[in-house]
Amino acid sequence: MTTSRLEAFSDGVFAIAITLLVLDIHVPVPGSGDLANELAARWPSYAAYAISFMTIGVIWINHHIAIQRLGRVDHGVVVWNLLLLMTVGILPFTTSLMATYLREGEHLAAIVYGGSFLLMSLVFAATTRHILFTRPDLLTVDLDATSRRRILLRGLFGSLPYLLASALGLLSPYATLLVCGATAVFYALPTARADDEP
Amino acid sequence: MTTSRLEAFSDGVFAIAITLLVLDIHVPVPGSGDLANELAARWPSYAAYAISFMTIGVIWINHHIAIQRLGRVDHGVVVWNLLLLMTVGILPFTTSLMATYLREGEHLAAIVYGGSFLLMSLVFAATTRHILFTRPDLLTVDLDATSRRRILLRGLFGSLPYLLASALGLLSPYATLLVCGATAVFYALPTARADDEP
Amino acid sequence: MTTSRLEAFSDGVFAIAITLLVLDIHVPVPGSGDLANELAARWPSYAAYAISFMTIGVIWINHHIAIQRLGRVDHGVVVWNLLLLMTVGILPFTTSLMATYLREGEHLAAIVYGGSFLLMSLVFAATTRHILFTRPDLLTVDLDATSRRRILLRGLFGSLPYLLASALGLLSPYATLLVCGATAVFYALPTARADDEP
Amino acid sequence: MTTSRLEAFSDGVFAIAITLLVLDIHVPVPGSGDLANELAARWPSYAAYAISFMTIGVIWINHHIAIQRLGRVDHGVVVWNLLLLMTVGILPFTTSLMATYLREGEHLAAIVYGGSFLLMSLVFAATTRHILFTRPDLLTVDLDATSRRRILLRGLFGSLPYLLASALGLLSPYATLLVCGATAVFYALPTARADDEP
Repeated sequence: MTTSRLEAFSDGVFAIAITLLVLDIHVPVPGSGDLANELAARWPSYAAYAISFMTIGVIWINHHIAIQRLGRVDHGVVVWNLLLLMTVGILPFTTSLMATYLREGEHLAAIVYGGSFLLMSLVFAATTRHILFTRPDLLTVDLDATSRRRILLRGLFGSLPYLLASALGLLSPYATLLVCGATAVFYALPTARADDEP
Repeated sequence: MTTSRLEAFSDGVFAIAITLLVLDIHVPVPGSGDLANELAARWPSYAAYAISFMTIGVIWINHHIAIQRLGRVDHGVVVWNLLLLMTVGILPFTTSLMATYLREGEHLAAIVYGGSFLLMSLVFAATTRHILFTRPDLLTVDLDATSRRRILLRGLFGSLPYLLASALGLLSPYATLLVCGATAVFYALPTARADDEP
Repeated sequence: MTTSRLEAFSDGVFAIAITLLVLDIHVPVPGSGDLANELAARWPSYAAYAISFMTIGVIWINHHIAIQRLGRVDHGVVVWNLLLLMTVGILPFTTSLMATYLREGEHLAAIVYGGSFLLMSLVFAATTRHILFTRPDLLTVDLDATSRRRILLRGLFGSLPYLLASALGLLSPYATLLVCGATAVFYALPTARADDEP
Repeated sequence: MTTSRLEAFSDGVFAIAITLLVLDIHVPVPGSGDLANELAARWPSYAAYAISFMTIGVIWINHHIAIQRLGRVDHGVVVWNLLLLMTVGILPFTTSLMATYLREGEHLAAIVYGGSFLLMSLVFAATTRHILFTRPDLLTVDLDATSRRRILLRGLFGSLPYLLASALGLLSPYATLLVCGATAVFYALPTARADDEP
């Protein structure tokens, strides 16, 4: 399989998952109260939408960088990629769960939300590990052992905020949301990727 | 990142957001009244569908023109582009809000509807500004300072109808819908883009 | 704009509209009756799904043939194409309307269903007319006036079954469904396109 | 039609169907009980999501291999491909049906679930047969009669687990789910495709 078809299919799943997020923001039923109050009460939905949108966007960027290093893909890359997409595809559900239960103070919803990001980033790291250490022959760039270890470690470090976010869910769902949001903003900042190419 | 993958992903989000609009047009529940009356009563949904569809279509065309000028993209373009897609992705919600509350005479729904278009066009202008003034080295075409200012100003002028539409929501939601519709029709007319390439 | 980006965006809308059709087939609520009966009672949904799926598939094929003749596109082609996609995007709604009201004997639902196919095919013919008669300079193939008239007439002839299907809705919704289904099957048959390239 | 446009459109449908699966996992309504219990009770939804996701992923891989062998496509390939996509597009419905009725012990839901995979794989085999035996002139690779028969037989063998899964639905829906899951895992294993290229 060529990398371009893998990218096209993956782009499709990323684009659809990111756009389906909006379906979890519900229009208030007319007559259920003052519209301004009703819309304001939905702020967890808007926050969860924005944070999940940027998080999926960031993983999409990282996915592109990872695939770009490949000249072709083997069956293992395709399957790891499918598992990664499966963890991305579930995010509209965990986002909706988070938005629904934030104001209820439900710790479990926050743990699942942070946990779904953690799972996604761990599967991403596993995919990276498969490429860099099991099938380095698929790479178009020549990476020595140190570079490969550094790339993998950076991916694992990138999982830490989500581990923190999940753990903080035990204390407060708001803390989970805050850490996830701050992580998305951090990765979007210009300096975050200074030396990341390729 | 190549411009072609950025375009492919963005096209996916535009295409999905534009097609999800139909989910907000609900089939009347059998037994809830005369079908002709029920379907006729849904005219705000049809109008909002058509107007949002054409508006997303127009921003898609402008997006294409903006990306076409680029030889490659930097992290900033990718992030601005994600923010733009986030404002596009929210439109099925604001469209549904507008359609639901138009006949209720809800000023707030109209302000949010016009405001979501305004936000989208302002983020588009900010993306344009980033490309033309912060990273002109990414351009494949040679644009002097006058041309770049003219392109940016034209983008900002394009936001004015949505500012007007939002403000008119204070008077009447119908006025908001009318201005948004007229804007979409204007941009679709042949003469509107006479000198727009590139 | 290149034809390839127009195709990619259009393919996205076709693919999403065709796949959203499944959302109108609802799983029976547990406890609402014998599952076999409940599933059997949903046959209008399955029939409408299959017929709309094939009809969108056929218009997608025709769209490809029409775009293939173009070397580049002008603003008019892009706008006509958007209008065409708007008529495609509405089909999940009209399909759901048809499936919901078929067994109620609602003539109006059938007329709207057939009418939405008719509208789509008329906008397709209008797009063809714009390309062949207003902007023949965009074509990569050299078509004499006779060929162009023949292509346009064939497109208009292709609208007739949908005109018939809409009109038959006045008699019986089942007749509408039958004609739409027969039309989809006819276009899928090998002989139907014998001389259609290019 | 070029194979690349057929692939792009098909990729779109595969990507959308695979991502729509998440819509069948519902967030518990606040106040309906202990969240941990409510989430745990949804395990059939998670299992059905994962199994259907991997199954669609596997058929996507096989689809890619089949199309890759083609230099161009005829009307028959396009129509068979549409029929295949129609069987893929229905899977979010049958997956939701399975998830909803698993714990009810509904044999019929399991038979329909296994049956929808069986149908998909049979239409895939029919598409393969059309390509290899009716239009071998479309192939870019030279396959002798033995190779072609072997490819077709392998496709038919690949349908057997789904026949078994459907039949087991008569005994227990859990057995159906287990066989479908084991089949997806088997195809994802590295050894399963050892000699499958091209």
